Amino acid sequence: MLSGRGIEVEEVKAQLKAQEIETPSWGYGNSGTRFGVFKQPGAARDVHERLSDAAQVHKVTGVCPGVALHIPWDKVDDYDALGQEAAELGVCIGAINPNVFQEPEYKLGSFGHRDPAVRRKALDHMYECADIMQQTGSTVLSLWFADGTNYPGQDDIIERKRRFEECLRETHAMLPEGARMLIEYKFFEPAFYHTDIADWGMALNFAIKAGPRAEVLVDLGHHPLSTNIEHLVALLLDEGRMGGFHFNNRKYADDDVTTGSVNLYEVFLIYHEILNAERRGAAAANIAYMIDQSHIIKPKVEAMIQSVLNIQTAYARALLVDRTALAEAQAEDDVVAGEEILRNAYDTDVRPLLAIVRQELGAAADPLGAYRRSGYFERIALERQGELKGAASWG
Amino acid sequence: MLSGRGIEVEEVKAQLKAQEIETPSWGYGNSGTRFGVFKQPGAARDVHERLSDAAQVHKVTGVCPGVALHIPWDKVDDYDALGQEAAELGVCIGAINPNVFQEPEYKLGSFGHRDPAVRRKALDHMYECADIMQQTGSTVLSLWFADGTNYPGQDDIIERKRRFEECLRETHAMLPEGARMLIEYKFFEPAFYHTDIADWGMALNFAIKAGPRAEVLVDLGHHPLSTNIEHLVALLLDEGRMGGFHFNNRKYADDDVTTGSVNLYEVFLIYHEILNAERRGAAAANIAYMIDQSHIIKPKVEAMIQSVLNIQTAYARALLVDRTALAEAQAEDDVVAGEEILRNAYDTDVRPLLAIVRQELGAAADPLGAYRRSGYFERIALERQGELKGAASWG
Amino acid sequence: MLSGRGIEVEEVKAQLKAQEIETPSWGYGNSGTRFGVFKQPGAARDVHERLSDAAQVHKVTGVCPGVALHIPWDKVDDYDALGQEAAELGVCIGAINPNVFQEPEYKLGSFGHRDPAVRRKALDHMYECADIMQQTGSTVLSLWFADGTNYPGQDDIIERKRRFEECLRETHAMLPEGARMLIEYKFFEPAFYHTDIADWGMALNFAIKAGPRAEVLVDLGHHPLSTNIEHLVALLLDEGRMGGFHFNNRKYADDDVTTGSVNLYEVFLIYHEILNAERRGAAAANIAYMIDQSHIIKPKVEAMIQSVLNIQTAYARALLVDRTALAEAQAEDDVVAGEEILRNAYDTDVRPLLAIVRQELGAAADPLGAYRRSGYFERIALERQGELKGAASWG
Amino acid sequence: MLSGRGIEVEEVKAQLKAQEIETPSWGYGNSGTRFGVFKQPGAARDVHERLSDAAQVHKVTGVCPGVALHIPWDKVDDYDALGQEAAELGVCIGAINPNVFQEPEYKLGSFGHRDPAVRRKALDHMYECADIMQQTGSTVLSLWFADGTNYPGQDDIIERKRRFEECLRETHAMLPEGARMLIEYKFFEPAFYHTDIADWGMALNFAIKAGPRAEVLVDLGHHPLSTNIEHLVALLLDEGRMGGFHFNNRKYADDDVTTGSVNLYEVFLIYHEILNAERRGAAAANIAYMIDQSHIIKPKVEAMIQSVLNIQTAYARALLVDRTALAEAQAEDDVVAGEEILRNAYDTDVRPLLAIVRQELGAAADPLGAYRRSGYFERIALERQGELKGAASWG
Repeated sequence: MLSGRGIEVEEVKAQLKAQEIETPSWGYGNSGTRFGVFKQPGAARDVHERLSDAAQVHKVTGVCPGVALHIPWDKVDDYDALGQEAAELGVCIGAINPNVFQEPEYKLGSFGHRDPAVRRKALDHMYECADIMQQTGSTVLSLWFADGTNYPGQDDIIERKRRFEECLRETHAMLPEGARMLIEYKFFEPAFYHTDIADWGMALNFAIKAGPRAEVLVDLGHHPLSTNIEHLVALLLDEGRMGGFHFNNRKYADDDVTTGSVNLYEVFLIYHEILNAERRGAAAANIAYMIDQSHIIKPKVEAMIQSVLNIQTAYARALLVDRTALAEAQAEDDVVAGEEILRNAYDTDVRPLLAIVRQELGAAADPLGAYRRSGYFERIALERQGELKGAASWG
Repeated sequence: MLSGRGIEVEEVKAQLKAQEIETPSWGYGNSGTRFGVFKQPGAARDVHERLSDAAQVHKVTGVCPGVALHIPWDKVDDYDALGQEAAELGVCIGAINPNVFQEPEYKLGSFGHRDPAVRRKALDHMYECADIMQQTGSTVLSLWFADGTNYPGQDDIIERKRRFEECLRETHAMLPEGARMLIEYKFFEPAFYHTDIADWGMALNFAIKAGPRAEVLVDLGHHPLSTNIEHLVALLLDEGRMGGFHFNNRKYADDDVTTGSVNLYEVFLIYHEILNAERRGAAAANIAYMIDQSHIIKPKVEAMIQSVLNIQTAYARALLVDRTALAEAQAEDDVVAGEEILRNAYDTDVRPLLAIVRQELGAAADPLGAYRRSGYFERIALERQGELKGAASWG
Repeated sequence: MLSGRGIEVEEVKAQLKAQEIETPSWGYGNSGTRFGVFKQPGAARDVHERLSDAAQVHKVTGVCPGVALHIPWDKVDDYDALGQEAAELGVCIGAINPNVFQEPEYKLGSFGHRDPAVRRKALDHMYECADIMQQTGSTVLSLWFADGTNYPGQDDIIERKRRFEECLRETHAMLPEGARMLIEYKFFEPAFYHTDIADWGMALNFAIKAGPRAEVLVDLGHHPLSTNIEHLVALLLDEGRMGGFHFNNRKYADDDVTTGSVNLYEVFLIYHEILNAERRGAAAANIAYMIDQSHIIKPKVEAMIQSVLNIQTAYARALLVDRTALAEAQAEDDVVAGEEILRNAYDTDVRPLLAIVRQELGAAADPLGAYRRSGYFERIALERQGELKGAASWG
Repeated sequence: MLSGRGIEVEEVKAQLKAQEIETPSWGYGNSGTRFGVFKQPGAARDVHERLSDAAQVHKVTGVCPGVALHIPWDKVDDYDALGQEAAELGVCIGAINPNVFQEPEYKLGSFGHRDPAVRRKALDHMYECADIMQQTGSTVLSLWFADGTNYPGQDDIIERKRRFEECLRETHAMLPEGARMLIEYKFFEPAFYHTDIADWGMALNFAIKAGPRAEVLVDLGHHPLSTNIEHLVALLLDEGRMGGFHFNNRKYADDDVTTGSVNLYEVFLIYHEILNAERRGAAAANIAYMIDQSHIIKPKVEAMIQSVLNIQTAYARALLVDRTALAEAQAEDDVVAGEEILRNAYDTDVRPLLAIVRQELGAAADPLGAYRRSGYFERIALERQGELKGAASWG
């Protein structure tokens, strides 16, 4: 059916097979809202259980080999052993995520903190993470800062900016060879007056000052409502600083709900811009596609699989856009035709195509069903009782 | 100076002395964001320490005799003794706030839950709270529900609505004589697809169905951005269902920052509508003015004092509006004059007036300074070490 | 394929054939933003040209027999003749939309205006519209008010509320037998401080006071960002006051862009709630489905066809939801399954089904293509030169 | 009183006397919303009447010598004569504002337009404006673009970006010596899918590429809701690219209501950051302070005076901040004290101080009263009847 529309089906399949989506270790453990944490049966308690869960997602989807780690929650003594453990599970270590927001010293900030001792503590943690990157072969340092202020007058905004510039430069200098750092931004929360890295413009500004291997990380939930995110992505690609994504979705604020559960068309439009950039020769292949979700109501592994399927669906549909026809419509100012061409691709039912792709990858035609039937959840719900000694986590 | 402008200063002072603002027991203990709780020195650990802190706020401001309790965090065996303890501190027990969101059973809702057993559990807790009202003489049951869904298809929205109607009717029936129940609404969080009581319209609809003693509670941070809150307050007053406030402020979402710290003019405009309603004969005097704030960065007691001062300031300025001149401007369609009359009142420096009022009330002319000089904070920071046996709280 | 999934295809087809979407006369003429109006070739200049354009939309889609009129723009001397003209074109007169915002007297309001003479003028216009309803057999009076204030102090909010209550009651009393009035709300614009009917709660409150034949009209673009509209629709249906829709879409404010162009899933979820209500026995069949869009960039008729197709698509997909399976998932608290059931229906490619339905209705399998090939646009672009004597319109 | 608080009153007065706020010629003529234009008695019809009105504002406030022109609405044959006319009225020509959004060719864009002929037309208009700058001695070219798209697929976002970069570079090259260009951004409207210059980050990016004399213009109403504008201003100052302001206020979208009418504290916080930057040595003195408001309900001249007074008030209060004490509070992490220091300045009643400043400037102690008493409005309301030949304007 698709080939009748002039789509090179084999090429589309090849691109879908090459897709990689990294899942986060912290997405498999308990988490919650500020009103409470509801503990789930089978929630992963340490990095080993998290890798095991991530491996399940990869097994049924075939496109999730990487697992992002969060330090210190995923700290181990022997990273060689951890890498081997991952390899045996069929996955590998992905981005390293430092944590400079949880300890009491960071109450008023980390890289933006007034006190040089706190900034030094945060930088020391970065050295530790750079070391873990070296040991695990990770090439991505993924930086999110909770820094900001809650009240006017609390601190000097520009002094904070300059402290950030200095610390980010030092962090850039410690990156292992071949590695890069991604700077995440967030419109608000946990800071409620100003956030030191509040939008893509600030992240880009800091990245440029930090060095050539600093790029911007786009978390889909970190914008003001109704922001045109695909516009920002296109622009960052054109500037050579589009580093990666944190996929999730939101209806209100930073809800962290399943990617595509509110508006999958938005994810499709983002992929459309990425494919546009690739056609222009942008280094789009270098984007780190990562999920960042924290499920409170849904079972963790199922929710992760759902997200992966949604992202795959959006990508597959974007691959079906007839770009030649689109360019023609645009050249004739035919707004209706231009939109219809996108919608025709988006309205296509790609489930049969994706089932074939997954089977050819050795994964499951119906990943959610396969996972449910596997008995994995029943097993971990039974096995994972009590707390593990030495385990660290979110909540 | 004011009397020169035709203001009856003594009347204004009398109204300011009659003002009462209730502070919440949970505002004196530790709390946080979903990213973590930063423990504060001297944070209150149980209801006794909370009453003590609340008494400090009343002591220096003179307008905060009431203390709202949160059940089960503030549960005691002997409420007579608790009332006496409060009285000795110069304060009294205010609104009773049930908690039907924290226990695991409430993961998918309380009054809206599909399972009758969960609804029964929530109703049993309401009976318990009604009983505590009887014992403490509290006349306000303050209801907030975390109920909602995170995904389309999770539950049937209308079935949930009907469950709420039924449970709220039963709650109304259990109110002690002379007491009323306030129904709070919230636009979103912790639910991220739909919230069962999402706006004032839903709260009013539920209140009407519950019975004559059910009213609406307006939390200043629970609206979509740029909502005209004073409009809603005016309307609810005109409908006879304006029950009370939860004061706080927000710049982004439900930030729970100091009342008036983002835009005090909004609080002034709310008081202006209340005073308008009083002139029309509405039962405005029956509004429960309560603070609901959770301070993460600021010391708890200081932040509470600041909030009280801001609310006082807004009220004092609203009392200075020349309502006769305003009515004249409106009768002549003089939009500029109408606004200037409000602004003239708002631009007045009421600090000297408030200092006098406070002194005449036996409180402090400079409440923040007096509190800081009192040594209270140093004392509790020293004394309140470790956890108290049997103490319950937010985090 | 669908029947294999247990869907009663013939029933679905019957429901799709019974669907009716009214298009607005004012959607076929020139309009613009406050920055300017770009005149389009072939834009309809009077009611006759507007009916002709609407007939084209109905001809190719088969589901748009009704045409909403705007008074005074569509005023004629002989409504019998107008009805006959419509009938000959294959369409009929739909809702009557009064205009109480354009004349200079309405600068500070209509039903909310301080001056009884202005309110009387607005009421006289309502009598005129009720008379036109009688003559045209229209059963829907569709009320939108631009009333509000731009500054605090400009007018008394509660006095305005009471004036509205009185005028709406009088309007209700003048409704022809069998007719009803729909009260539209809007969060903001053109008023920028307060809007007299700002949300569904105010519209419902006014409707209840006006009388049993007053209902609420939901315009999809008139809410705060991220409002859960399907929740409001479900609630209004349950209260028996859901009167009708103004379909359009928005990304930012009241953008009036093509329905479904930003997020078609939202339209699907709205239809899902309507079908839920129908299953409960609600009078959902009585909803007036109307488009309210003002296209600036796209050709008018094409944009209207696109919108109709999108609405049809959303409805068709909602009809495919497996409601039995959904109820089962909800009964087991299976959040993932509940969502997947909705998504399975939504991800279905309904274009082949809709093509068959349209052909069986005698319309076009490919409405946009058929319209483009018909030569209609080329003809009107040529014929409609200059201004028509006595023609009135938006800009 | 102030001097008692350690404020150098004479220095504050000197700074207040040095303040300059430019008013816009288009702010004195008729304008409206997309729902209609309400013509005001006495509304200025051509550039001569606009200059006369602007001179009234300067006469009573003493701080508004500059008048921004909008080309082509303010085009004249003889700019020398216009300059002389302005000088005789006591004012002078300020920023030049090109218009590349009103003519039919610009329907799909100007600098971003696909068609090189349209971009050339827009650039030709820029040459014309640069020529007018030369003739009038204006040193500011103030650029706002309505460019964007309404639908996905309408145009190629990145091609548009590159066209903008090229055209802005050419515009930079044509700037008269000593002049600069300010690039304005806007979150949305009139474009409703993407806006080519949507935020400060894009404006800065374009400015950097255009050249050293390109800076960013901040319009207070052009941000997503709850954006921390003072943060952006501080950052742009630190980057040396803060070019100027368009003052106005909004509660909802780009409402263009009186500056400070919704939240004057925000304007105060912006001035606070500017003063912080000045203390650091930033070229803050080079900011162009301009009003951009379009009054629909209020009489034009009165509304402009009100805005000027509000801006003055915010500036005066910011000058009263005790910066030494603030730095001390920040050095001690005393969040409450830091905020209180700002609030102490903001709560000061600066009306007496401003009255003295104005009188010493030869303006009116009570500008609004003086204007109302002057009889100017009654005269223009009488004189300005009918349309002027050759006059161009907004609506």
